[in-house]
Amino acid sequence: MSPTKQILALNRFEASDGAALAPELAARVARRQATFGASSVLFYKEPIEMVRAEGVFMYDAHGKRYLDVYNNVPSVGHSHPAVAEAVARQIAVLNIHTRYLTKPAEAYAEKLLSKFPAPLSNLTMTCTGSESNDLAMRIAEAATGKRGFVVTRAAYHGNTHHVTAISPSSMKSKPVPDFVRVIPEPDPALAPGGDVAAFFAGNLQAAIDDLEEKGIGFAAVIVDTIFSSDGIFADPPGFLQAAVEVAHKAGGLFIADEVQPGFGRTGGGLWGFSRHGIVPDIVTMGKPMGNGFPMAGVVTRPDLLSLFCEETGYFNTFGGNPVAAAAGSAVLDVIEREGLIDNARDVGAYFKAGLSTIMGNRRDIGAVRGAGLFIGLDFIDADGRPDQGLATFVINAMKERGILIGAAGLWGSTLKIRPPLCFAKDNADFFVDTLRAILAER
Amino acid sequence: MSPTKQILALNRFEASDGAALAPELAARVARRQATFGASSVLFYKEPIEMVRAEGVFMYDAHGKRYLDVYNNVPSVGHSHPAVAEAVARQIAVLNIHTRYLTKPAEAYAEKLLSKFPAPLSNLTMTCTGSESNDLAMRIAEAATGKRGFVVTRAAYHGNTHHVTAISPSSMKSKPVPDFVRVIPEPDPALAPGGDVAAFFAGNLQAAIDDLEEKGIGFAAVIVDTIFSSDGIFADPPGFLQAAVEVAHKAGGLFIADEVQPGFGRTGGGLWGFSRHGIVPDIVTMGKPMGNGFPMAGVVTRPDLLSLFCEETGYFNTFGGNPVAAAAGSAVLDVIEREGLIDNARDVGAYFKAGLSTIMGNRRDIGAVRGAGLFIGLDFIDADGRPDQGLATFVINAMKERGILIGAAGLWGSTLKIRPPLCFAKDNADFFVDTLRAILAER
Repeated sequence: MSPTKQILALNRFEASDGAALAPELAARVARRQATFGASSVLFYKEPIEMVRAEGVFMYDAHGKRYLDVYNNVPSVGHSHPAVAEAVARQIAVLNIHTRYLTKPAEAYAEKLLSKFPAPLSNLTMTCTGSESNDLAMRIAEAATGKRGFVVTRAAYHGNTHHVTAISPSSMKSKPVPDFVRVIPEPDPALAPGGDVAAFFAGNLQAAIDDLEEKGIGFAAVIVDTIFSSDGIFADPPGFLQAAVEVAHKAGGLFIADEVQPGFGRTGGGLWGFSRHGIVPDIVTMGKPMGNGFPMAGVVTRPDLLSLFCEETGYFNTFGGNPVAAAAGSAVLDVIEREGLIDNARDVGAYFKAGLSTIMGNRRDIGAVRGAGLFIGLDFIDADGRPDQGLATFVINAMKERGILIGAAGLWGSTLKIRPPLCFAKDNADFFVDTLRAILAER
Repeated sequence: MSPTKQILALNRFEASDGAALAPELAARVARRQATFGASSVLFYKEPIEMVRAEGVFMYDAHGKRYLDVYNNVPSVGHSHPAVAEAVARQIAVLNIHTRYLTKPAEAYAEKLLSKFPAPLSNLTMTCTGSESNDLAMRIAEAATGKRGFVVTRAAYHGNTHHVTAISPSSMKSKPVPDFVRVIPEPDPALAPGGDVAAFFAGNLQAAIDDLEEKGIGFAAVIVDTIFSSDGIFADPPGFLQAAVEVAHKAGGLFIADEVQPGFGRTGGGLWGFSRHGIVPDIVTMGKPMGNGFPMAGVVTRPDLLSLFCEETGYFNTFGGNPVAAAAGSAVLDVIEREGLIDNARDVGAYFKAGLSTIMGNRRDIGAVRGAGLFIGLDFIDADGRPDQGLATFVINAMKERGILIGAAGLWGSTLKIRPPLCFAKDNADFFVDTLRAILAER
């Protein structure tokens, strides 16, 4: 089985597993598969039916409570009343596209853009991170006249045709297309001498050279600035600077995919790229932007957006509607009012320290790393190799004990720890204690 | 100026026009352009700031009321309380992706799929019509192993990279890519002997032959089943049957893009394809599906969806969340409870008759056509040629008199009449009387 197949199969319900589900659950799953068909993806060998959620907790149909350490979309907390109220208020009054002026859309655009460094001053509103990355690719193509992209080898940037091409983790067997080059994730364990910056920039340079040599040319490198699907790589801060320099020197762009790290998760400002002291050419956003209200966006420089719009008309029907703007604005307000960036930093550091304590006593944890409330924890076998089986075991055991968690990385052996940003220290304690107990009882 | 450029420029605010806007409006527009940049698209030489909307009416910042005869997203009526309440209720309780089971998602999928003929029994939820058409293209590619698509010459199917390739109306100067063939719209005026079915199917066959000859192969023909951007062509009912036969005989698929005609607008069932007595291989939906809540979908046969999923993992983070399901379910309920399909049929027929009366007395209206509450009205000059100038004049004069309307068609000379489905006969009277007066005073 290839690494990619491992990721796709990870902790996914498979009807073919023939697991003996309770009759009621079996019936629910059968209904799901009859309607959603082959595109149905359900978590766990025994899927969970969720009925409500609040803050850091979700509740299933049997009233069982789960601590959510997985879902990064309801980032300011499940069912946050400020977001729910903002949506409820606006949707009863006006919900229309941006070809009319509306105060909520313009006010939100100004509020969001005030969070970006110059010269990133134009916002295009879309509905999904996929749409944002699809647009970002085309802005880069228009700006450079080139079509080559460089991504990491377990990258996931979305689900459109064009974005799937730069998402190796979505491909089950086919290689990436000719215009895509795949480079290793910035893993200190892979970098000679642990020099992540030189390792990553060097691999980028080699990929660019190959694109140029093959006559494809280099449009952009696009990275999730915390490398979520690659296994979470945040350190050392600043390591992306060398990559930005390489991209610019080659005449291409640096696209920061902030769909995962954005909106405060890394605990060091709103954006993952801030950790690296860089200014990307294009920034894409999605998932947590509206705390679950479908909305996303692209921020870039006016000159780049203009080049794209010269040839292609772009309009997004739902993008930037006043209800989305109300949701997005409430999210920014809550992040500020509730001090969620500081909370991500403080609770994240506390959480990481707790996890590191477990690691200190065990040989099956290879590393704990991350920034803020985005932490990766590697499981390894006795030979130090990625242990996907252990990750899957832990994920299911955690579920039994009321914790939702998932995995990432090329081998699916890294716990992907990314709870809502209102996560508290006692939530972290519960997770650490539970993980310790599960591993001890193995 | 090419036809396509005409459409893109149609009734769009252009800063370069140097229109003398009132200072307050000029300031608002400047704020918009500073934030949205080159991707900002505003209607009218003097853009309108909207503040609220209800039923068939919208209200601007000065309290001026507009009868909405343009916006097809808030299809069951602006700010419909049933939709607003369904969203408000659900977003306060649970908003999560489909990798958990949720009753709202499964119940909505079953309700929606019950509105489709066999063998269309699988639904994939997305967020936008663009995402739906992007996915439909890939399902067709996977099913046929071919990559050629046939579309009409002013088609618009969405804004992703792949879908833009099959949307000639989005391209400002470049030709369509090598895998796309463009055929004329099914205009009775172009069809020899007025035989629209033979004309359209014959052109499709020629396009397919060319794709095969060039070694590209034929994957699918995709049509908006009421040909909105082409200028609205609904008659005679059944004319698409011959095209479906041609597509199937060539081993390709027929994709019905229901983003515009879907959800009752044509007054003859929920779908535009019903008018033609056909069963498409893939149906895509969008705009009115959630009355403005960002949601969309793809319905197809299980065998086709399975073929696609064999190679590519598809998951849509926001797609099928329970809030979208609640909105979509409320929309279906309102359509049924308020008899909106019958209303579209009855008021649409009444409306079309009223417009035809104007045409009977004038030489500058070439045709009135459509189905239900989707009506096209062609403006022509003294030589019988498309008169985009008159369409633009009417659109702006209508605005002054409190009516929102737009244009479509290859030359932008066709009034695109598609009000909310709760449109009443007195609303139609107001439109007809106003149009008559505007034309009389010219």
